[in-house]
Amino acid sequence: MSNTVLQRHLFGPGPCNPYPEATAALGLPLLGHLDPEFIARMDRVADGLRTLWGTENLRTLPLSATGSAGMEAAFVNTINPGDVAVIAVNGLFGERMCEVASRVGAEVVRVDHEYGTPVDAQRVADAHPNPAVIAAVHAETSTGVLSDIAALGAIKGEALLITDAVTSIGGMPVLADQWGIDVGYAGTQKCIGVAPGLAPFTISDRAFERRVLKPQSWYLDLGLLGGYATGSSGGGRTYHHTAPVAMVASLEAGIDRILSEGLDAVTARHQEAGGLLQEGLQDMGLELFAQAGYRLPQLTTVKVPEGVDSAKVRGYLLDRFNIEIGGGVGQYANTVWRIGLMGPNANPGSVALLLSALKEAITKS
Amino acid sequence: MSNTVLQRHLFGPGPCNPYPEATAALGLPLLGHLDPEFIARMDRVADGLRTLWGTENLRTLPLSATGSAGMEAAFVNTINPGDVAVIAVNGLFGERMCEVASRVGAEVVRVDHEYGTPVDAQRVADAHPNPAVIAAVHAETSTGVLSDIAALGAIKGEALLITDAVTSIGGMPVLADQWGIDVGYAGTQKCIGVAPGLAPFTISDRAFERRVLKPQSWYLDLGLLGGYATGSSGGGRTYHHTAPVAMVASLEAGIDRILSEGLDAVTARHQEAGGLLQEGLQDMGLELFAQAGYRLPQLTTVKVPEGVDSAKVRGYLLDRFNIEIGGGVGQYANTVWRIGLMGPNANPGSVALLLSALKEAITKS
Repeated sequence: MSNTVLQRHLFGPGPCNPYPEATAALGLPLLGHLDPEFIARMDRVADGLRTLWGTENLRTLPLSATGSAGMEAAFVNTINPGDVAVIAVNGLFGERMCEVASRVGAEVVRVDHEYGTPVDAQRVADAHPNPAVIAAVHAETSTGVLSDIAALGAIKGEALLITDAVTSIGGMPVLADQWGIDVGYAGTQKCIGVAPGLAPFTISDRAFERRVLKPQSWYLDLGLLGGYATGSSGGGRTYHHTAPVAMVASLEAGIDRILSEGLDAVTARHQEAGGLLQEGLQDMGLELFAQAGYRLPQLTTVKVPEGVDSAKVRGYLLDRFNIEIGGGVGQYANTVWRIGLMGPNANPGSVALLLSALKEAITKS
Repeated sequence: MSNTVLQRHLFGPGPCNPYPEATAALGLPLLGHLDPEFIARMDRVADGLRTLWGTENLRTLPLSATGSAGMEAAFVNTINPGDVAVIAVNGLFGERMCEVASRVGAEVVRVDHEYGTPVDAQRVADAHPNPAVIAAVHAETSTGVLSDIAALGAIKGEALLITDAVTSIGGMPVLADQWGIDVGYAGTQKCIGVAPGLAPFTISDRAFERRVLKPQSWYLDLGLLGGYATGSSGGGRTYHHTAPVAMVASLEAGIDRILSEGLDAVTARHQEAGGLLQEGLQDMGLELFAQAGYRLPQLTTVKVPEGVDSAKVRGYLLDRFNIEIGGGVGQYANTVWRIGLMGPNANPGSVALLLSALKEAITKS
């Protein structure tokens, strides 16, 4: 059955509306997952992802599942039971890291931060003398906060640094090699501007050499996936599972779109749109949630004004304007809105539409 | 970058060419994963999957990863360390079950069968007095063999019955409730006629009640996924991960296509095409691999004639006719071809094309 609504403006925390090129590529004739043309496509996608990740890591690939599986792959492949994982928590996805790591058998050392504030690298460094891994979220989708991953790379010592770049990649610089990221995972449905379904992933040689040799998960075992994606297992490409070929074609098109525009231009576009939005919201008398100086341009958190019903406003926006924005998370579910301007939505027109519609929604709902 | 080849005829072991409706749905305007319209879509997909699975299981959903992740979910949610898993092995996917189950901590009792032959329920019953689970593949993609799952349901006793229906679902009857399947997983890219990327999954109340309460995998934890997909966790729908919304729209369209044609008609179409193909191959003097009486219509295995180079023939078919067929698996890599006629490819025209092209390829390559 077709959608019964017109095109939504996906201004929530993700997915965003995809780049048109990414949607069009979903309709390309399907290739078999072992077709030489598809293998060449996977090579091109890996190259493009290396550019987005700022890495030369051989093992850079789209995992065949969503971003949350990327998180799971990061811990499953690096944590042996009893290993210490120091995890910075300043939002939902840091919380989730703790849960995922503990299921794999990590001894989790949480470093809690107030929601809305960035990760403090010194507190992470002081949390444990020699952890196996340190993990943090670059751009916290739940709070709209940017953290300094390079600062964590500087204090990581012998630990492996795991980074969640789900909401940053494709919309702002991610420099895995320069910052010292050993394992990074992301999603396609935020600033990359592709439908959800794949988890762009990268792992350094250093981390790969120290990997868990037979992880609990066969599906996410990078020892096997290396051969699947890059032929790097030594024996050439090996069959592991059937790649989600349509999604990979779409990802290629999304990456091509970004690199054609240029990473700097795309970053500037996200910065401009986010800046205009945050200015406009404050001009309306609204208060931003994330700490000043650490606000993500692509994902803005704003406090729901006193006396306003968060869900009613979101319902009004959806019904009248086909605009989706997000509620808050956890204790902030009803007191914070999350507004994303990602991928093709990062433009002044989206800002104008959103501000105008939100003003009406707050008044009339 | 676009594909540089014309449309492939995907006559290998999968993916097949998708139903046109399924491809078209990939281009529908994207919905957010929490959009009421998307939630309604997930409900319709779950209903459709219940029909394909022949079940009334509440917990029937498309997992957000490929069929192999469905296999992992089956064992991750049912096996506590040390539990006995009796696994029937008559092909690659039975082998894989052993590997996946052992990583989760199962004590695996393998019941090996000659490749090309079906599972013998009595041998499975005799393998262990009280296993926690019994597992088998309904339609072995690696060998082209159909096994009798109802016979395993009849002898399972207190064990849970796990069934791989990746290659059967959507192309032949799968009657989970009638046969006694407790946990079933499949893929979208075979007879359902949708691109790869989702794993249709079903679990009975009986199995759910006995599930592992905190499985190693957070991503595949059915206790959490129940709330995500069906609101069955008691607290209504809960956010778990971002659903691959474009693929779910495509799956809905594929299921609609199948149910509009009618399951009986679709089954008959696959049977007719497979029968014509197997007859035609034998008329050409070729010998089928799978044991007579247990041959899958949708996936035919045929021996490569003596003196013929398997890879050269496959290359010739691809280059000249844009036809993909599969090689064999493991020790049969170069001595068996696998020819799939699945989804929209299950029709007499595909058979005519394939037989004619294969004849030329064998002669000229």
